[in-house]
Amino acid sequence: MAAFESIDGGVTAPKGFQASGACAGFRKGRDDMALIFSSVPCTLAGTFTSNLVKAAPVLWDREIVQKYREARAIIVNSGVANACTGEEGMRICEETAEAAADALNIRKEEVLIGSTGVIGNQIPMDIIRNGVSLLVPALSDTREAAYDAAGAIMTTDTVRKEAAVSFTLGGKKVTLAGMSKGSGMIHPNMCTMLAFLTTDAAISAELLQKALSECVEDSFNMISVDGDMSTNDTCLLMANGLAGNREITEEGEDYILFRNALSLISKCLARNMAKDGEGAAALFEVKVQGASSRQQAVTLAKSVIGSSLVKTAIAGHDANWGRIICAMGYSGASFDESRVSLRFQSKNGEIAIAENGVTTGFDEALATKILSDDEITAVIDLHEGSESAVAWGCDLTHEYININADYRS
Amino acid sequence: MAAFESIDGGVTAPKGFQASGACAGFRKGRDDMALIFSSVPCTLAGTFTSNLVKAAPVLWDREIVQKYREARAIIVNSGVANACTGEEGMRICEETAEAAADALNIRKEEVLIGSTGVIGNQIPMDIIRNGVSLLVPALSDTREAAYDAAGAIMTTDTVRKEAAVSFTLGGKKVTLAGMSKGSGMIHPNMCTMLAFLTTDAAISAELLQKALSECVEDSFNMISVDGDMSTNDTCLLMANGLAGNREITEEGEDYILFRNALSLISKCLARNMAKDGEGAAALFEVKVQGASSRQQAVTLAKSVIGSSLVKTAIAGHDANWGRIICAMGYSGASFDESRVSLRFQSKNGEIAIAENGVTTGFDEALATKILSDDEITAVIDLHEGSESAVAWGCDLTHEYININADYRS
Repeated sequence: MAAFESIDGGVTAPKGFQASGACAGFRKGRDDMALIFSSVPCTLAGTFTSNLVKAAPVLWDREIVQKYREARAIIVNSGVANACTGEEGMRICEETAEAAADALNIRKEEVLIGSTGVIGNQIPMDIIRNGVSLLVPALSDTREAAYDAAGAIMTTDTVRKEAAVSFTLGGKKVTLAGMSKGSGMIHPNMCTMLAFLTTDAAISAELLQKALSECVEDSFNMISVDGDMSTNDTCLLMANGLAGNREITEEGEDYILFRNALSLISKCLARNMAKDGEGAAALFEVKVQGASSRQQAVTLAKSVIGSSLVKTAIAGHDANWGRIICAMGYSGASFDESRVSLRFQSKNGEIAIAENGVTTGFDEALATKILSDDEITAVIDLHEGSESAVAWGCDLTHEYININADYRS
Repeated sequence: MAAFESIDGGVTAPKGFQASGACAGFRKGRDDMALIFSSVPCTLAGTFTSNLVKAAPVLWDREIVQKYREARAIIVNSGVANACTGEEGMRICEETAEAAADALNIRKEEVLIGSTGVIGNQIPMDIIRNGVSLLVPALSDTREAAYDAAGAIMTTDTVRKEAAVSFTLGGKKVTLAGMSKGSGMIHPNMCTMLAFLTTDAAISAELLQKALSECVEDSFNMISVDGDMSTNDTCLLMANGLAGNREITEEGEDYILFRNALSLISKCLARNMAKDGEGAAALFEVKVQGASSRQQAVTLAKSVIGSSLVKTAIAGHDANWGRIICAMGYSGASFDESRVSLRFQSKNGEIAIAENGVTTGFDEALATKILSDDEITAVIDLHEGSESAVAWGCDLTHEYININADYRS
């Protein structure tokens, strides 16, 4: 794999992209709207929630991705999800796109929309119009502007999620960047809550979509905070071609290089979303290896990160490994219990917990020490084959209850 | 439906059944082993966890149910689950059955075993032998003996779950009773954690199994505390025929009457397990009606009671109804969002929350009052057909975290 250079940057890192954040009025005293804008038209790819109940902005964006494959702006509000809002919700999407398009001097079909927040309430258009009037003049290609935009899309997130990488494609420097948000109702099955990616690479719409769909599978689709798949999950990727590389139009070396960079950024954002899951004190990574098929490994890894009992054990730094085997057992995937081995890893060390399906008689004090880190990995080996999968979740703590028992108040 | 008389009683209520509880040594200062014994051989039925990873006692019992369809005793320990224990775990089952059989002067193949507690540890046989030496002399057919047995199988349960009903079958008074335990790792898919039912009805093994399998579907299989399906789920039903009714050997009136009584007892125990779910402050009942198929209603109801975000909203008395629609949306069942109506009910009143998929603009203060009861019902109408389903869950509170973050310590 060619060298990727991780850089300190957000969605404005690729050439030609500007961003801004503003307090439009959904929330008091904190930014609640963000805008991303490209100086030239972009090729577009997107993946969306597979929840049967789709928010209005998901329906709006999906039509643009499928019909036009091109866009120039993404406008996002945090505060109201615009889900379960009927025809009125769709009208508000159209009016939002029109308001942004007018101010940016582009067409409304070039404006994508993201919404996150409470389900079931209508979005007040006066707040959206106020947001547009603040966001458009504030557009900038600086590092700070990307940071502002990443902050404005947060809800219960405690940290901004941004990532950027540079690499060389056909002799040209290409940059790929993204921002995303969690941190509850996170259990994506096409893509996660909200993730917006920008790149100055030149690449055909078809391959852009292919690369995104592939990368989402191993990144956003492998995380879970609470098992609740949102109505609003959206991942959008805009490529404006300003890097000047020869357009990627086939699945050759350039495509693979681009896809690897996209995979890097997607996994970085996904992992950070899991680590900043609502109330999370620790990232919980589960690697299933020695599997006979990729699907078997994926199913088992996802079942383990989704278990409330495993998540509370991690919160308690308790090597209650039977809960992990139990979650594997009800996952629906088959495996031979008597061949399974399990070990825990963290910055504090590594310990073998089970072999051939039974306990190793491990040192409890050492296990607790290893599980007391803020990033914990469970390595499960099925000893059946050579396939593997990695999933990311988090512990389940009191803070999750605090956040969600009175989310709307 | 014929009249059933609910009676104050447990597993000793039917003729010929004795029970006892004792502190064998798994836990300090509280009973941890229970015994149920019939003075004559019983017809036997059982349903078990569909978790791929099955505890040793599940394998032991399943063989007896499938091979012999007869038994006389059930011995239970709370403290160690005897799951993920390999061949050693199976040996301990056999030795446990032998020890009990010797003391009861029956064959080891007539002894069923239930275990609940930590997964991954071996059961010390000396504690079991101590338990048997205490339990057998203490056997009694009194109300108190049933109460002792129901208390000895509890782990994180806060109340005993017992139910008993009498009815007339062919001119004879028949009694059916049961006890069960939760209250974590509860998300049954054949049957739930541990439930033991006794009856003095005379019924063929085939119809006993058929009645149990049918009733489990609408009762134990419709509850969830935390989405984690246990390795130990076991429901056993012993019928000793001492009521003197003509043996039920076909699906006539008598069978239907018996099955209705069994359904009543099963739902009562299941509902109480949900209400006493780990950390639960409220029972959360979800009725899906107006469905086009039973399976659609079941899938939707189970998805809603399983949602962490719905459960925390209930804990917060927050009418965050979008989370319910969201959980329906990712359930895998199809429905028309624009036709859904939702209302909440409790002893404090009733309120319409959504109609045709959008908010009714309900009174938040009234909704909060209704959701502040300890038994809450959500009625979801799909307006598609006439099928329905009811599922039972509970809220997700701080106490769940307290209980499970340091379960083993």
